[in-house]
Amino acid sequence: MRLLVIGGVAAGLSAASRARRIDRRLEIVVLERGEAVSWAACGLPYYIEGQVRDLDELILHTSEYFASQRGIQVRTGAEVAHIHHARREVTLTGGERVSYDRLVVATGARAGRLPGGGAAAPPVFTLQTLDEARRLKRFLEQGKPRRAAVIGASYIGLEAAGALRARGLSVTVLEAAPDVLGRHDPELTRRLARHLERHGVELRCQTPVQDVGSLGCDLAVVATGMAPNVELAAEAGAELGPTGAIRVDQHMETSLAEVWAAGDCAETTHLVTGRPAWIPLGSTANKMGRVAGANAAGARQRLAGVVGTSIVRVCGLAFAFTGLSAPDARQAGFEAVNARIEAADRAPYFWASPTSVELVADRRTGRLLGGAVTGEHGAAGRINVIAAAVTRRMTVDEFQELDLAYAPPYAPVWDPVLVAAQQLAKLLD
Amino acid sequence: MRLLVIGGVAAGLSAASRARRIDRRLEIVVLERGEAVSWAACGLPYYIEGQVRDLDELILHTSEYFASQRGIQVRTGAEVAHIHHARREVTLTGGERVSYDRLVVATGARAGRLPGGGAAAPPVFTLQTLDEARRLKRFLEQGKPRRAAVIGASYIGLEAAGALRARGLSVTVLEAAPDVLGRHDPELTRRLARHLERHGVELRCQTPVQDVGSLGCDLAVVATGMAPNVELAAEAGAELGPTGAIRVDQHMETSLAEVWAAGDCAETTHLVTGRPAWIPLGSTANKMGRVAGANAAGARQRLAGVVGTSIVRVCGLAFAFTGLSAPDARQAGFEAVNARIEAADRAPYFWASPTSVELVADRRTGRLLGGAVTGEHGAAGRINVIAAAVTRRMTVDEFQELDLAYAPPYAPVWDPVLVAAQQLAKLLD
Repeated sequence: MRLLVIGGVAAGLSAASRARRIDRRLEIVVLERGEAVSWAACGLPYYIEGQVRDLDELILHTSEYFASQRGIQVRTGAEVAHIHHARREVTLTGGERVSYDRLVVATGARAGRLPGGGAAAPPVFTLQTLDEARRLKRFLEQGKPRRAAVIGASYIGLEAAGALRARGLSVTVLEAAPDVLGRHDPELTRRLARHLERHGVELRCQTPVQDVGSLGCDLAVVATGMAPNVELAAEAGAELGPTGAIRVDQHMETSLAEVWAAGDCAETTHLVTGRPAWIPLGSTANKMGRVAGANAAGARQRLAGVVGTSIVRVCGLAFAFTGLSAPDARQAGFEAVNARIEAADRAPYFWASPTSVELVADRRTGRLLGGAVTGEHGAAGRINVIAAAVTRRMTVDEFQELDLAYAPPYAPVWDPVLVAAQQLAKLLD
Repeated sequence: MRLLVIGGVAAGLSAASRARRIDRRLEIVVLERGEAVSWAACGLPYYIEGQVRDLDELILHTSEYFASQRGIQVRTGAEVAHIHHARREVTLTGGERVSYDRLVVATGARAGRLPGGGAAAPPVFTLQTLDEARRLKRFLEQGKPRRAAVIGASYIGLEAAGALRARGLSVTVLEAAPDVLGRHDPELTRRLARHLERHGVELRCQTPVQDVGSLGCDLAVVATGMAPNVELAAEAGAELGPTGAIRVDQHMETSLAEVWAAGDCAETTHLVTGRPAWIPLGSTANKMGRVAGANAAGARQRLAGVVGTSIVRVCGLAFAFTGLSAPDARQAGFEAVNARIEAADRAPYFWASPTSVELVADRRTGRLLGGAVTGEHGAAGRINVIAAAVTRRMTVDEFQELDLAYAPPYAPVWDPVLVAAQQLAKLLD
């Protein structure tokens, strides 16, 4: 019995590793078209910025490790051209055929490409693979560029903008949508723009870019237009969902028998709206991969869904959110009420920095729908508490009572999330 | 209508301030026996260590502020000698009488005292008031002591030990109980002892101290034997609970009509056991005070209870816990199963430090009962997520699915709390 996994980064390797834990005798083969497996894509901006000195630091495990330690055969440079599901077989681009009994599709997503800007256009980079990062860094070191344009206020775009700014370049971020990070949240956009401005980075929203040549920059980084890699699965007959990504159920099963999908190529369910969502994040990818792998190996596990929790560090400050923004909540049919507070992130006498917390609730039920946190310290922990509360459908009153940790180096005696809940409770009264 | 509040620190001032919000016309009088009101008792160790340079930084608001901004009359140096509840009146130590219609008792707790050690004994300090902190700091600066003994591995004891060590003293912590921090948790004690040892502080548990003179030290800090200040309320007829603190219901009402109690002098309910608990912490005190004040002003609010979440920084490392330890859970009748993991607290390539997470669950139901986190970064946020889950009675399987924030500077792709939950889930299978 052979389990074949297409894709050897986050979801694919989570699936393969989990499958091995469930079934020690299964033959497991992973096909990765890139040069390396098990590497940390999220670390690329930190390689550009300099915290990560060598790309080898981002490689967690090698193919040899998977072979010898986990009994998983991982092939790099192996790009699948077609899935022939009727004969349980894939064809690689070189013509080689690989058969399977069960299949996990973890083909990921890709960044958009821009139409070529002509001979006069500056070099254009993406930041999706080790090789792309290497190329960009080499250009920064050798080409001595001064002005950079980042196309797309996505996670990778904003991290890249911070990295380029930290290296001394003048940076402009251009985003086609009205808001950043794919979230309909003008308040978040406003705060991020102000923070970037303070660090000398210009953010222009509602500014689609047609021609990189017109930007007057020495290089451009394209970090926009992410799309799920669904072509292989779709061609094989797997249904796509309303988001355009591969449709899966809670068990990560696709519409094809014995085919699971996980990670950035597949949909998941948003637990607040109950609707399909496409949330291409590393944390979600690993969770989905783990469930897909378990089930492909014969277990019966599930992932009910996610609440879209995420965090990004931009020029030293964390921007985090979870659940629905107020505008998104209204669009989903909730009667959204929101409150936002600014508070010290620790005891005021303990080198506190300001942190901002926003909470969103449904007026009819008092249920917490989402939140956002910005701050230098503790933002991850605070957004995670809100995420847990949103997941468990806590009301604002219940949330207010939470017994959170207090000590001067870590939080004020009323944690900012509780202060925000108190404010929101007043509006709901 | 006069609301009288006895005690002007955490719970008392939370109560007075909240009562003012609810009822603008109520007359509110706060009697505080100390020299200052609204000051941060939790900041005293940081004054000893030096982060807080001046005790004035710890004073949040003055009596004048409360009078002019909140219409609350706060009297310092006003010690209540008796409550005569039948005539709705208290007597101060100087003989003055103050009448009331409604009363909030927020008399706090006190540190234990040791029997005098004779003329040869070193000076003994406590660290409960501004004046005590001033005395200790003066002695450290003028007396040039070299060896300190800290009696009691309580929060304040451990913080004081860290502060004294940071000032260059040789420090020994002596604790009468087998474990630290009033929690039955040998694993926590072991980790804390090892950490202290690494920083040159010796921790001796099961070592009751009778005679400070025998310790061979130049000064002793007593931080043990905390007891609730219940005498005034008890003499007035208020019932005490099984913990020895003042019994209150969810509305902070005592057994006496129109008398509420809050903070370190009163009990609360432990939400995991459902039983009365005495948990003298600043965060709990403020929550209880807020509810007591609201209700004393005519509202109807409640605090269902707490889960005993706490965190303390000892020599740079956070030790945090919530809910029940495995031994406490067994004693409370649960079939406790626990798992503990060590993991990187951020992406491994982002200057990660090790963090340790322990989770405790009930085998029969899979319900999460408690947890502990140790680490340099993110421990507060992680314990708070566990606290929210324990409060909402999540199972380990539900907890495992939580959608927590991931970005390299803040967490690894699998947050350590999720890794701990995966381990625990295996044991529950």
